[in-house]
Amino acid sequence: MELGKELVRRGIGLVYGGGSVGIMGVLSRAVQEGGGDVVGVIPEALTPIELSGPMVGTTIVVRTMHERKAKMASLADCFIALPGGYGTLEELMEMLTWSNLGFHSKPVGVLNVVNYYDPLLQMFDRMVTTGFLLQAQRDIIICESTPSGLIDQLLLRGGETARDGG
Amino acid sequence: MELGKELVRRGIGLVYGGGSVGIMGVLSRAVQEGGGDVVGVIPEALTPIELSGPMVGTTIVVRTMHERKAKMASLADCFIALPGGYGTLEELMEMLTWSNLGFHSKPVGVLNVVNYYDPLLQMFDRMVTTGFLLQAQRDIIICESTPSGLIDQLLLRGGETARDGG
Ligand SMILES: [Mg+2]
Repeated sequence: MELGKELVRRGIGLVYGGGSVGIMGVLSRAVQEGGGDVVGVIPEALTPIELSGPMVGTTIVVRTMHERKAKMASLADCFIALPGGYGTLEELMEMLTWSNLGFHSKPVGVLNVVNYYDPLLQMFDRMVTTGFLLQAQRDIIICESTPSGLIDQLLLRGGETARDGG
Repeated sequence: MELGKELVRRGIGLVYGGGSVGIMGVLSRAVQEGGGDVVGVIPEALTPIELSGPMVGTTIVVRTMHERKAKMASLADCFIALPGGYGTLEELMEMLTWSNLGFHSKPVGVLNVVNYYDPLLQMFDRMVTTGFLLQAQRDIIICESTPSGLIDQLLLRGGETARDGG
């Protein structure tokens, strides 16, 4: 997986939701097998191996879904959304809302594979033109179509603080 | 405010985030002044009058932003998203994700004033065509351009359970 290789190549670690299922399972194994740091944060209810598969890297067990998100947000230096469904979009929106509320000032990246997220980006632009969002809040989002392009931009934006989190 | 009048006319109560600022402040006062039930759920950190204005209707004070959302979700019989920014979209996505996870089976309505949410709806359709979302999960969302049309559809979908929450 190309994003995994890029993270390893640049010495950037991965913080994710733990376990080994789905696209994040693939990514976490790619980073670990390449020798990169992997931290999984998982609620205790999801720790059974039947639910989440074997753990990858270092696993931190928390009590709730909410605690998981807060822990991941505090460990990471920036955030990357891959293509996904409702849950992915919810997590992306949560990081953007927390940024608006001043809970963090970390850059938020969107990996726009084959323009998947174009309609969402149009939605954000519409929020600005209709006055529901400030341009500066829209500009938090860094959008690139390739992993290397996205990481380049996140590193530029986040500066040195982005060097040890993913 | 037209949505407020529709809720009052049909004897449907409003559950919202409390206080009297912003568009939800306007809506809550419209419902209360029309004689409708209003319940505000607010975290203690936001209760000072300088932050949220005077409370409207019955106010329930909770500890955290997360508890607020969980309380509102359990009190309401359906959900309505008005046009808004990151925070609104985050709340909409959270209710959709919770539905996917089986935490509730309440209908989720989008008030699509002057087609504001069209790009977001296109995003949801793209999630389905790319396999990130099941059509049945997409179909949870009821989208109408007018308050009366939206409430009609929500009542149809939610049946009797939708009669005493908003
Ligand atoms: Mg959320």
